[in-house]
Amino acid sequence: MLLRMAKSLTPRDPLKKTGPQVQFRMRIRKGDTVALGPGKVALLEAVREHGSISAAARSMEMSYRRAWLLIDELNRSLKSPATVSEQGGQSGGGCVLTPVGEDIIRLYRDVEVQAHEACAKQIAALKRLMAL
Amino acid sequence: MLLRMAKSLTPRDPLKKTGPQVQFRMRIRKGDTVALGPGKVALLEAVREHGSISAAARSMEMSYRRAWLLIDELNRSLKSPATVSEQGGQSGGGCVLTPVGEDIIRLYRDVEVQAHEACAKQIAALKRLMAL
Repeated sequence: MLLRMAKSLTPRDPLKKTGPQVQFRMRIRKGDTVALGPGKVALLEAVREHGSISAAARSMEMSYRRAWLLIDELNRSLKSPATVSEQGGQSGGGCVLTPVGEDIIRLYRDVEVQAHEACAKQIAALKRLMAL
Repeated sequence: MLLRMAKSLTPRDPLKKTGPQVQFRMRIRKGDTVALGPGKVALLEAVREHGSISAAARSMEMSYRRAWLLIDELNRSLKSPATVSEQGGQSGGGCVLTPVGEDIIRLYRDVEVQAHEACAKQIAALKRLMAL
């Protein structure tokens, strides 16, 4: 997952890899809550990779409780949940992504790439103003 | 400034103003430092509006010290500075934007609008997955 993020967020020109790095972060807010943002999407990707909330939490150096709360908050903000947990007690069972969860990851990562491409001119102009 | 940000970040359809709000945040990093991001751009706008770092800091409920450090960090990361401070002691003098400072604000706000427009389809799809 880290490799994938790095690939989508860094400039393509290998000569520029030591120069400034551009990062896009989209958040969808509902009132005071960030319903969807980079943290929840990275957590969904980790659940997909590791097959459980506890393993996903460990891989992100996050407490199980925090990961569980984030997933719960995300699922409550959706019409239909992004994950399904298997039986097995609060920290025992596995967790898999639903098609909605897969869609969220795909759409969110696509937004990052598209935003980057659409703003290439402005980003280049900003980078030109910066000292190396 | 707040009104301007709200205008550029919220959906255009007035019927949707109580629905989810989408926020784009671009950051340009150099190593561990965020050379340019939403905080520094908002601070530049406040300096432009209020004419000094101290008044800009007050308007953002930020300490003068923090505002000064952010402006200093920004200027050091640029080939040519974004602001020019008038004489008058560390907290006394005025501060105005250079053409570079104006360019940074314009390019950064343009990125937000362009990113939003370029990703309208994905954003609409993500919003459709969310409960109201």
